[in-house]
Amino acid sequence: MEINIQKMAKRDIRELKTYKPEVISCPIRMEANENPFVINSQLKKQVLDSIAKISLNRYPDSLSMDLREIISKKSGIKIENTLIGNGSDELIQMLITAFCEKGEKILYPVPTFSMFGIIAKSLGASPQEVPLNPEWDIDLEEIKKAYEKLKPKIIFLSSPNNPTGNCFSENTLLEIIKTFPSLVVVDEAYADFCGKTFMGHLEEFNHLIVLRTLSKIGMAGLRVGYLIAHEEIVNILHKVRLPYNSNSLSQKAATVLLEESDELESQIKMIIEGREFLWKELKDLEKLGGIIPFPSHANFILFKTQKNADHIHMRLTEEGILIRNLNVPGPLKNCLRVTVGQPFENQAFIKALKKVTANKT
Amino acid sequence: MEINIQKMAKRDIRELKTYKPEVISCPIRMEANENPFVINSQLKKQVLDSIAKISLNRYPDSLSMDLREIISKKSGIKIENTLIGNGSDELIQMLITAFCEKGEKILYPVPTFSMFGIIAKSLGASPQEVPLNPEWDIDLEEIKKAYEKLKPKIIFLSSPNNPTGNCFSENTLLEIIKTFPSLVVVDEAYADFCGKTFMGHLEEFNHLIVLRTLSKIGMAGLRVGYLIAHEEIVNILHKVRLPYNSNSLSQKAATVLLEESDELESQIKMIIEGREFLWKELKDLEKLGGIIPFPSHANFILFKTQKNADHIHMRLTEEGILIRNLNVPGPLKNCLRVTVGQPFENQAFIKALKKVTANKT
Repeated sequence: MEINIQKMAKRDIRELKTYKPEVISCPIRMEANENPFVINSQLKKQVLDSIAKISLNRYPDSLSMDLREIISKKSGIKIENTLIGNGSDELIQMLITAFCEKGEKILYPVPTFSMFGIIAKSLGASPQEVPLNPEWDIDLEEIKKAYEKLKPKIIFLSSPNNPTGNCFSENTLLEIIKTFPSLVVVDEAYADFCGKTFMGHLEEFNHLIVLRTLSKIGMAGLRVGYLIAHEEIVNILHKVRLPYNSNSLSQKAATVLLEESDELESQIKMIIEGREFLWKELKDLEKLGGIIPFPSHANFILFKTQKNADHIHMRLTEEGILIRNLNVPGPLKNCLRVTVGQPFENQAFIKALKKVTANKT
Repeated sequence: MEINIQKMAKRDIRELKTYKPEVISCPIRMEANENPFVINSQLKKQVLDSIAKISLNRYPDSLSMDLREIISKKSGIKIENTLIGNGSDELIQMLITAFCEKGEKILYPVPTFSMFGIIAKSLGASPQEVPLNPEWDIDLEEIKKAYEKLKPKIIFLSSPNNPTGNCFSENTLLEIIKTFPSLVVVDEAYADFCGKTFMGHLEEFNHLIVLRTLSKIGMAGLRVGYLIAHEEIVNILHKVRLPYNSNSLSQKAATVLLEESDELESQIKMIIEGREFLWKELKDLEKLGGIIPFPSHANFILFKTQKNADHIHMRLTEEGILIRNLNVPGPLKNCLRVTVGQPFENQAFIKALKKVTANKT
């Protein structure tokens, strides 16, 4: 028997494109918003020593208690208000799974993190986009109009926003939380690079949810994200959480690295310094007319190119430097995004960018 | 603002109970169908050495190529026909997410693995159960009737079945695959303990899907499951797969352990020997009238107790031995499930079971 597999798939899925991370091989990788620094060998040894003690044959701690305990200790948030995900992608998936019936709306300003829309579609929810204003800030009136029309179940806001790099106006964001009886998810994936968090408002608003991830501060390989919210929300999410969603190795490594966080904190400082360096250099380049950089509070900088961005992106890869090509029609036309690298990588990138934007091509 | 969180959750979710793994602390744990043996220190060193080389700051390989390559090499299945999940739980989740519209049915015989139904409910699909016959085998007529009435999108069959331990009649299973134009998922989580697999039928049937997991053969802590199916199915699942669903550490550890599989294979042999030992002892006990064991091709044995199973379960934990209590009204009334342990654990369990079933309590 041979059956028509395509016709078996959900209608929403048939139209969905597979998300494919860039896999161009380059010596300098500044495309994925990772922390470019490795941990020192002593800390690495500590991580490996504690991994060595794990019984691989046993299931992980279903509730990730050790990891949630250190997160609780560092953030001052109670353990009951925390939840671990296999990356924050999985937490977004849990939120939509638990709260959105088929066809129910989720709302977010664009451009932003593409997984909100991709995950929503895969689960049969309906992603609704509201454009950011030309300063990449939230247009409150537009959000209000969209809210009234669409009554979204969840509003997703990234702070700082990816790929634009800026933080939305704090007052606007608070106004959204205060005004709309939706769940409001503030994705703070890049908050470590700006120091601003909305966790302080959690007691005030039981419909506020904060997402954090360890992926941007040096642990992308582990797939550990966490969610902070009212206990009622956490308990509902536990119902849809796969019982062993976080593996033993990642739980342990993340726990050790958060306990010994001095190293990560000094790396975050270096990344912020690297961002300042890149910003200054990109502003200098702007004067020559080749590019326009946008202010960033994250570990990357978005910039618009005067010439065709696809070409500049390709030329940079030829120079051994991979950055993210975001060039599609719309507000991101001719936009590229560079992740802050190690100092030598930042220098190499600026040098290469000067070369490829100066060239008559 | 305070909103009614409970009313925000999806209707199906409100009724769903949280799946809670047993967390009673016992020196001897025979409740979770894990491999009781740890790996030898040389192999452990090999695993740790390769983990030491991972750059934790970088995202994992989105496509888990090394791991899929070794799986392909061992199974003779092409890489394009394989897919890695964060445990096979996640593969079940992907299948239902990709193929079941809200309210569409999934069908499976019961008793079986509870996650089929739990995951289906969380995703808005409708789980439909057909009772197994008194020999715990599939009742083909009942399945046919249910199929005609319900037209399920996916049929889930476990081979061997958990918690009953038996393999369903091969002819019946093949008849189901041949007859029904649904997706047919054969969950082979325990197939390493019986040697029988349906992978050989994949070329014949493009709607057959085989699930495997590394959790039962010594890697429960890693959360690695894999799926084998027609490329069209794999490609549809890639659309709903979170891009980094498998972390770097687990990918690497699983790859090393599968490359050096002699150790695992000798452990599987010891587990089968342990199962034979337990079976013989339980059959002896049956003669005394206290229990009825059911034949098993898995790494556990199900048995029915004459006295109240809750009480026997509690008394066993007092003796330091944790097994799985499955006692609920219905076919599993007074049923307990014991996972094969190390030889000393199997002996301790039999000794304790004799004691607690003999006791006048």
